[in-house]
Amino acid sequence: MTNNFSIAIHGGAGTILRSTMTPELQAQYETGLEAALDKGYKILEAGGSSLEAVEGAVVILEDFPLFNAGKGAVFNNVGGHEMDASIMFGEGLEAGAVCGVSHIKNPVKLARAIMEHSGHVILCGEGAEQFAKLQNITFEDDAYFYTEQRYKQWQEALKEDKVQLDHSDKKFGTVGAVALDKYGNLAAATSTGGMTNKKFGRVGDSPIPGAGTYANNNTCAVSCTGHGELFIRSVVGYDISCLIEYKGLSLKEACDLVVYDKLVKMGGEGGLIAIDKHGNIEMPFNSEGMYRACRSSNGRYEVKIYP
Amino acid sequence: MTNNFSIAIHGGAGTILRSTMTPELQAQYETGLEAALDKGYKILEAGGSSLEAVEGAVVILEDFPLFNAGKGAVFNNVGGHEMDASIMFGEGLEAGAVCGVSHIKNPVKLARAIMEHSGHVILCGEGAEQFAKLQNITFEDDAYFYTEQRYKQWQEALKEDKVQLDHSDKKFGTVGAVALDKYGNLAAATSTGGMTNKKFGRVGDSPIPGAGTYANNNTCAVSCTGHGELFIRSVVGYDISCLIEYKGLSLKEACDLVVYDKLVKMGGEGGLIAIDKHGNIEMPFNSEGMYRACRSSNGRYEVKIYP
Repeated sequence: MTNNFSIAIHGGAGTILRSTMTPELQAQYETGLEAALDKGYKILEAGGSSLEAVEGAVVILEDFPLFNAGKGAVFNNVGGHEMDASIMFGEGLEAGAVCGVSHIKNPVKLARAIMEHSGHVILCGEGAEQFAKLQNITFEDDAYFYTEQRYKQWQEALKEDKVQLDHSDKKFGTVGAVALDKYGNLAAATSTGGMTNKKFGRVGDSPIPGAGTYANNNTCAVSCTGHGELFIRSVVGYDISCLIEYKGLSLKEACDLVVYDKLVKMGGEGGLIAIDKHGNIEMPFNSEGMYRACRSSNGRYEVKIYP
Repeated sequence: MTNNFSIAIHGGAGTILRSTMTPELQAQYETGLEAALDKGYKILEAGGSSLEAVEGAVVILEDFPLFNAGKGAVFNNVGGHEMDASIMFGEGLEAGAVCGVSHIKNPVKLARAIMEHSGHVILCGEGAEQFAKLQNITFEDDAYFYTEQRYKQWQEALKEDKVQLDHSDKKFGTVGAVALDKYGNLAAATSTGGMTNKKFGRVGDSPIPGAGTYANNNTCAVSCTGHGELFIRSVVGYDISCLIEYKGLSLKEACDLVVYDKLVKMGGEGGLIAIDKHGNIEMPFNSEGMYRACRSSNGRYEVKIYP
């Protein structure tokens, strides 16, 4: 136990217009972020692992109805909810991920069960749900995932026949967490309900180790939120890691290059949270806002939406 | 049109025991490899793009019953065929991928249609099949995918309740191609039937851009075959690219480091084919054999199974 410890979380990025944000709504988002941050930080403080901390924080965000993951997942084109999640542990590069599952209360828990008990990394669809049953993962019915806000967004999207990344203001709905524990182990987790009105079994970057989620004790832990297609093609999580490991950049230099330069040139709107092996925290985004929060044992504490 | 052009293909790696290989069977495999190589090379020679060439070569391999992709895809746990494929073009980092689809004659064609016409990168399962219908992708019934060899392997796996990577000698069944065209554009494609007797919607590295398939005009094109879980966690395709771009390694140095050192330490058996922007070709594997072939405009020509 020689290291400082720290955690960062996000609840999605995108054009979170100040003009449509009320003080009441902002306070609600901040309440959700604070609860998740507090959960993860206390796990780290008590000597828990970064894996426990990121899972614990993401579970709180999945249970919070305003974020697009778990309970607050958006509706797909047929009125259901298809969720993706992944988790990665930096000590041995273990990873688990799940794509396109329905009725799973906390997809991040299923991702961890896949990592620890399946012998595989990625499980998809009904097959993944069968595995979840064997692992006693909690299922919920459609009523649990119904929120009036998401239903309205879906109806609007249906009218316009549009696929929307989260809601009408283009917010990219994803939640995630990254953490460094007292033992020097990094972990990352990401969970999402994907795009409102999505069709064709579309999968974004959230469940892809190396893209939306990455953790490696030699470098950093990363969780992304944004236009998933561009984040997959840019292999964002592993790119940050490689820029540190192979090019000798600092975490800040790597994050700035990827988010403000490389992704912008590709048209990739969004952001990410990252922690390096020294406990440094970065939370860059090239969109109008990103729901984010962080706390470290050396005293840093932030809960923010806008720059 | 200033560049040389070249293509490499593979039909899977693993413990392809010499003891179980007959001269007749070896000749059959070589016939399949030569047909695919010839198809891709002629496309390049005629001034076609690397994207056309890798798709054309992989279609031949998918149609060839001895390789685990398309027609020769292995049986899953319920006696069906779930296939994965991806394609990537190095000019603009465009990518398309499909996971867990059934009845698609040539999954690589669907991957390309996803890249070009869906607005997405990865589509999964039934949703992907719906998209395939809209794109007039060819479907085949179960009888098309029945081969006696694969059925016997499945029955053996069922008896032993094992999930097997291709057949009993542990061969990793995947096919793939990488190419550099006359215009300096790199492309890669990979296609697989996954693991015999697989359950739970398992997805390997083949359909993951950055892992099993990667192409970037600044560096290289890569298609992998092997123990997919380890290849995902190691982000193999993009790792080769980053070692070239950020660390200044040659293609050979990058491939050797990843296949003979990093993957071996993780327990990741398999191999890959890669071409860099200069047309250099590497086909390393840490397993007993890898079905592979390559041809370049500067005269290199190889069709091999063993080292």
